[in-house]
Amino acid sequence: MRATIMYGAGDVRVENVPDPVIQNPTDAIVRIVNSCICGSDLHPYHGMPPSRQGSPMGHEFIGVVEETGKDVSTLKKGDFVIAPFAWSDGTCDFCREGLQTSCRHGGFWASGGIGGAQAEAVRVPFADGTLVKAPVGEDSGLLPSLLTLSDVYGTGYHAAIKAGVNARTTVTVIGDGAVGLMAVLSAKQLGAEQIILMGRHKARTDLGIEYGATDVVAERGEAGIEKVRELSGGDGTHTVLECVGHRPAYDQALGVIRPGGVISRVGVPQYEDAPIGFGSMFGPNITLTGGPAPVRAYIETLLPGVLDGTVNPGKVFDRTISLNEVPDGYRAMDSREALKVLVRP
Amino acid sequence: MRATIMYGAGDVRVENVPDPVIQNPTDAIVRIVNSCICGSDLHPYHGMPPSRQGSPMGHEFIGVVEETGKDVSTLKKGDFVIAPFAWSDGTCDFCREGLQTSCRHGGFWASGGIGGAQAEAVRVPFADGTLVKAPVGEDSGLLPSLLTLSDVYGTGYHAAIKAGVNARTTVTVIGDGAVGLMAVLSAKQLGAEQIILMGRHKARTDLGIEYGATDVVAERGEAGIEKVRELSGGDGTHTVLECVGHRPAYDQALGVIRPGGVISRVGVPQYEDAPIGFGSMFGPNITLTGGPAPVRAYIETLLPGVLDGTVNPGKVFDRTISLNEVPDGYRAMDSREALKVLVRP
Repeated sequence: MRATIMYGAGDVRVENVPDPVIQNPTDAIVRIVNSCICGSDLHPYHGMPPSRQGSPMGHEFIGVVEETGKDVSTLKKGDFVIAPFAWSDGTCDFCREGLQTSCRHGGFWASGGIGGAQAEAVRVPFADGTLVKAPVGEDSGLLPSLLTLSDVYGTGYHAAIKAGVNARTTVTVIGDGAVGLMAVLSAKQLGAEQIILMGRHKARTDLGIEYGATDVVAERGEAGIEKVRELSGGDGTHTVLECVGHRPAYDQALGVIRPGGVISRVGVPQYEDAPIGFGSMFGPNITLTGGPAPVRAYIETLLPGVLDGTVNPGKVFDRTISLNEVPDGYRAMDSREALKVLVRP
Repeated sequence: MRATIMYGAGDVRVENVPDPVIQNPTDAIVRIVNSCICGSDLHPYHGMPPSRQGSPMGHEFIGVVEETGKDVSTLKKGDFVIAPFAWSDGTCDFCREGLQTSCRHGGFWASGGIGGAQAEAVRVPFADGTLVKAPVGEDSGLLPSLLTLSDVYGTGYHAAIKAGVNARTTVTVIGDGAVGLMAVLSAKQLGAEQIILMGRHKARTDLGIEYGATDVVAERGEAGIEKVRELSGGDGTHTVLECVGHRPAYDQALGVIRPGGVISRVGVPQYEDAPIGFGSMFGPNITLTGGPAPVRAYIETLLPGVLDGTVNPGKVFDRTISLNEVPDGYRAMDSREALKVLVRP
């Protein structure tokens, strides 16, 4: 089959690789119907050291079950499924607590011998624990929205849930990428009445307004902080959903959070040390939370709204390409020509 | 009257200063019955640069109202009162939310023209908002326990509340100072069944066991982390109450927190930058919270247990001195001869 392999910064290739096969009785093989390119794929696209072996790419997909191992009991050939970006056994204590990203036997696509999702098919470990069936066909118009449940929608929702967003909390969302826009949508669904979106790409912030943003702040740095404070009565907002991951976004978050508030990070931090002392976090009793979203925990919650059309998260995809065009897709996302690229193998 | 003034590291003096007087109609003058020396007073005792003017000291006290401004409506001369370590108007949005340390018109003792509590009397701004009446006389045996409501008990309780301690959470308390011991007591009151106390002063950890600690870990650094992990089934505990404030205590907290857990800090951080990136906090979805405790918010909750003898937090005081002996009190706490020193002017 064909699969995407990255060999170093800027070097993405689509190649022929062996077809995945069942290795454990809890595995399933899923034929990929839609996958996509993630903002986080751009980190290795910028910085990966050259590699002869390369790394498979892609961690978001929906598809059809082709084959199941003999211990798989809830799925059968032909089922349409959504895959979260982490696979998990579904039975350990962390899974039962809804922290599937810390599953005792789980892992992530495109590592440890599991293939990537920017491919024609993938072997899914712990298929019963990992996959969620969806009552749709391959021709459904809902596919782009269903695909967001694989990562960006659940990730934005995680940011909002961990921040404790509700009808009484004001919200700042930092970042107008797909995750930031999904954080806006999630905050709106959780009842927030003021949602300030910090971003400066008009097509994206316009979609943010459609998803529920009440204000858009294009300024960055001190000017951006001042603007958010102005919009929030001088104090900043009760919650900040940080959906970027670069250090300036964290500093921005500290600048616009209200005393007693919660900064919830879902952008993968590209820094290790940062201020958390008296002047920044401790004095005003700020809480810092977040992490890789256990999106598996949220799929059942978010799926009904997608199926009945209440929400349309799939609008974050503004380009559709074939698998062979994936290298172009990376270039388009990297240059910000495209917000998020959907891949149809 | 006599009051304690610090003129630099190690230089604490008890001197005659002008008696406090009512300055605003919302003020009260309180004669101090008991005050004490705080672990946080040792930070300037170690590092304060020499000063000709000096700084008044002390932020914990109980006492008797001597005089009230004309707008004070809930207190009168003769009332016995508990003062939280921050004064606050009691009416602003932050006060109503229970974050009195961020009161829009509030402040802290011993700064901004307000005297310190290691003295004979003090002017209390916003007396109605700040002070809490207690139905006791000056000869009550409960005074040491009531005095802990001024800071250390409420601070330990804040750590436990912000961490979300309940019957299903395991707890590590870092630090066997008065705040650490109060964090143990608070975790116990909130129902925690496993409370691991990290500390190596046997008299203190013995008191910790009396307050509810189920395990004591005297080791520090990697050995301490390993021990706590061993005691908690390999994963660390759901919550860590960090009651020290030095950087190694934060590193210890990161080492013993379970994925998905909460580190709650109430020890005043003596560092600004620290690890919060993928490897330390983000990857395992750790939450970091805490700050200066709004103890005013907790006094009504904690007072009944003190009054009926359910709890005896006053045991953290292991030495009682007169006001003139305060410089000796600092020395005794600094050398760890004394856990916490009570001052009777």
